[in-house]
Amino acid sequence: MMINTKAVVNVLGLLLIISGGMMLFGLPFSLYYDSPDIWPITAAASLTILVGIAGWWLTPDSDRTVIGKREGYLIVTLGWVTMSLCGALPFTFSGAIPSYTDAFFETMSGFTTTGASVLNDIESLPKGILFWRSMTHWIGGMGIIVLSLAILPILGVGGMQLFIAEVPGPTPDKIHPRVKETAKRLWVIYVLLTGAETMLLILGGMTLFDAINHSFATLATGGFSTKQVSVAYYTSPYIQYVIALFMYLAGVNFSLHYFVLKRRFDKVWHNEEFKFYTGVILGATVILTFGLTLRHNLHPEQAFRDSLFTVLSIITTTGFVTADYEIWAPPLTFIVFILMFIGGSAGSTGGGPKMVRILLIIKNSLIELKRLIHPRAVIPVRLDNRAVPPEIVFNILAFFALYMLIFILSSLVMTSMGLDFISAMSAVIATLGNIGPGLGSVGPVANYADIPPLGKWFLSFLMLLGRLELFTVLLLFTPAFWRK
Amino acid sequence: MMINTKAVVNVLGLLLIISGGMMLFGLPFSLYYDSPDIWPITAAASLTILVGIAGWWLTPDSDRTVIGKREGYLIVTLGWVTMSLCGALPFTFSGAIPSYTDAFFETMSGFTTTGASVLNDIESLPKGILFWRSMTHWIGGMGIIVLSLAILPILGVGGMQLFIAEVPGPTPDKIHPRVKETAKRLWVIYVLLTGAETMLLILGGMTLFDAINHSFATLATGGFSTKQVSVAYYTSPYIQYVIALFMYLAGVNFSLHYFVLKRRFDKVWHNEEFKFYTGVILGATVILTFGLTLRHNLHPEQAFRDSLFTVLSIITTTGFVTADYEIWAPPLTFIVFILMFIGGSAGSTGGGPKMVRILLIIKNSLIELKRLIHPRAVIPVRLDNRAVPPEIVFNILAFFALYMLIFILSSLVMTSMGLDFISAMSAVIATLGNIGPGLGSVGPVANYADIPPLGKWFLSFLMLLGRLELFTVLLLFTPAFWRK
Repeated sequence: MMINTKAVVNVLGLLLIISGGMMLFGLPFSLYYDSPDIWPITAAASLTILVGIAGWWLTPDSDRTVIGKREGYLIVTLGWVTMSLCGALPFTFSGAIPSYTDAFFETMSGFTTTGASVLNDIESLPKGILFWRSMTHWIGGMGIIVLSLAILPILGVGGMQLFIAEVPGPTPDKIHPRVKETAKRLWVIYVLLTGAETMLLILGGMTLFDAINHSFATLATGGFSTKQVSVAYYTSPYIQYVIALFMYLAGVNFSLHYFVLKRRFDKVWHNEEFKFYTGVILGATVILTFGLTLRHNLHPEQAFRDSLFTVLSIITTTGFVTADYEIWAPPLTFIVFILMFIGGSAGSTGGGPKMVRILLIIKNSLIELKRLIHPRAVIPVRLDNRAVPPEIVFNILAFFALYMLIFILSSLVMTSMGLDFISAMSAVIATLGNIGPGLGSVGPVANYADIPPLGKWFLSFLMLLGRLELFTVLLLFTPAFWRK
Repeated sequence: MMINTKAVVNVLGLLLIISGGMMLFGLPFSLYYDSPDIWPITAAASLTILVGIAGWWLTPDSDRTVIGKREGYLIVTLGWVTMSLCGALPFTFSGAIPSYTDAFFETMSGFTTTGASVLNDIESLPKGILFWRSMTHWIGGMGIIVLSLAILPILGVGGMQLFIAEVPGPTPDKIHPRVKETAKRLWVIYVLLTGAETMLLILGGMTLFDAINHSFATLATGGFSTKQVSVAYYTSPYIQYVIALFMYLAGVNFSLHYFVLKRRFDKVWHNEEFKFYTGVILGATVILTFGLTLRHNLHPEQAFRDSLFTVLSIITTTGFVTADYEIWAPPLTFIVFILMFIGGSAGSTGGGPKMVRILLIIKNSLIELKRLIHPRAVIPVRLDNRAVPPEIVFNILAFFALYMLIFILSSLVMTSMGLDFISAMSAVIATLGNIGPGLGSVGPVANYADIPPLGKWFLSFLMLLGRLELFTVLLLFTPAFWRK
């Protein structure tokens, strides 16, 4: 069957109209702070909406009821690319980021909730621009497709295909049989949590503007801050703990939040991924706390707070920084490096390979040993007291292998851009895993400004690859995808 | 069923008698060179043989016909450990390596054909000791169990279990229905190739002693040289090319050598692993040659020779050094680092994850994309024009995931011993992959002398883990293994 190109263009136009509209949300802050970005933002938004309308207008006879698998993958990948292409315009139009390459990198980093930045003086940026920067996180965190499904009736039929392509995860955990209802519930929870964090941050003394921006970045597990030194700017333990709490919540499968609202606490308690997620965070925090207390003579509370915040920031792939984990003793920094290869829970806004995959890989490794002793017995991997079909485990193992292949080859690419090994490897995992800060020249107190332009485009590609969990994007590069 | 402990002890005794006997093979060189190691070697050999006889004598009523899976795994793992424990004695008795930790590390490094050394002045060692050092490679390369199966009639019944445990590989490619005949043929080829290389090296001007030692280390893909600066000592291109050729041959599945002797060239030609192995070597060599010529202004022949030798040395996991690949441009060094994660062909003496596994992982990744587009179609991975059963691919993916988990956690352990990230990670892959030299403080012009004692024991464990391909060793740490 031919690919339904018209429907693809039509939906892409729709996404641009929505995202162009969302550019304008920061204007009240521009007006309030009297910042010089009102016209650049309006121009960028208008242009984006115009391009969107053009796409819409060119395909009046498109049949959106024929959105299949391939159209789904195509819309999601191209949608994210075109949104980033247009989303970069406010940055260049306002002069906040003069280079289009840099602006594209920053925007893709925003939408994919990576949070890797090229900015060297964030506080100097106009408020409306900063707001748009945080907004890209917020849109990308839960996903623009999911948003569109929630608010627009017109994507009904192909909705499931789009949903699968944007939220690929290994264990689709639907909270409602209709995809529109699922999307709506997810976004409602997302908005509620964002609102709650904003209020708590204001109570801690943040301005409304900073509170909203940091809440956007937290719930999306993004990591863009309105401060150059990230959350380290806020020395208040209260603020750091509040952000840590909401990073934790953002890294949980959002279905579990829904079940909590429904008072179905058993669902949470019996969720092994949730227990593993919490266990890994606690375990790593305890080890780092001991390390920082004993090796670096930090006050225990400070050591605990730095450890907890860093562990949550890396594991949930948020990327906020309160402590320079690179000056820690090597084994402590290495623990942070290992955490970069894990990621949040499936169905959360966190990136990375995801908790449940790592859990199943570890479980399967242990069971492989049992299988060697009893080669004729069929011993399944169990999760949440159910046997996981071997095909699922197979897919997860294949995903992990592909992830590592991409990691190592991409690191080679980055060394050829002049980065040393540690900077290259950590820049790759920090973008592929949608984390943000890495080590070395892209470490927690550095940024991506000095990466060569080609490297910025390459890393932008890795961000997209990681956010859409490899296959959605890679598919478009196979001949089989384009064959009739 | 109870584990047949008596048979285990009995066979272990047998292995010690054989390996004690092989310690004496270097004595002619000790006599010829009048080196002061005759009595230490004789004492160590006698002690080893005595311990072996004790094990043999204590279990007169053992029933070696009841060697099952578990006995097989136990004999192989414990056999390699006890052989290393005793094999270290000539080094300590002669004073060549005063510390027993160092001597054990060097011996395990020898038997597992890793070739990582703690010696800072190799030329000063007595010849008989040097010969034993190379001999450990040669015994470990094809495997002492395989040797025992080939020369002794008494291991008949349980032989297959022992063979599987020592030569675990993903694709058992038997060249004879009887395991004794397979073992015999493998050793005959091994001896023939060793003899051929020895003669060619003598023709190039090496002494008989150095020629034998280097041939042992080459065919076993070990890497111990009788020179402190490794093969770089021999500036003769002829010698370097000869060693390169035999490294290449040692990294090929030995069944293919057998088929060549039988003039079944079609078997070689249709072997995809062989083609992949050759292709990766050529590809990497071409890239490195260009890099060294253009970036480092080396003479093309020199660049080609350094590239070819380094690629073969790392891919076959031999670990000989002719060029300091750490001073190359970062992307060139990174290519060498990537090659450390591949390894030789299955059924060769090379270590690492093995070519065929990497090939199948890559093939499966490509096919996963096809499966996404056609979810209902069953699309198998094909190798040598046959569909590979999904269980095999599953096991390979699980092996790779476990390999990476062990790699990253072991790297953490090594950073806690005071190594920097690159040294820690490369020390782990260089021992786990049985390669030898790594990067940084364990790089091609450095060695393992300065690793703390605990680190040496840990790395020795990784060598064994890698040589026996993880599962054989790890099994012994599971409760299920010891349950009746």
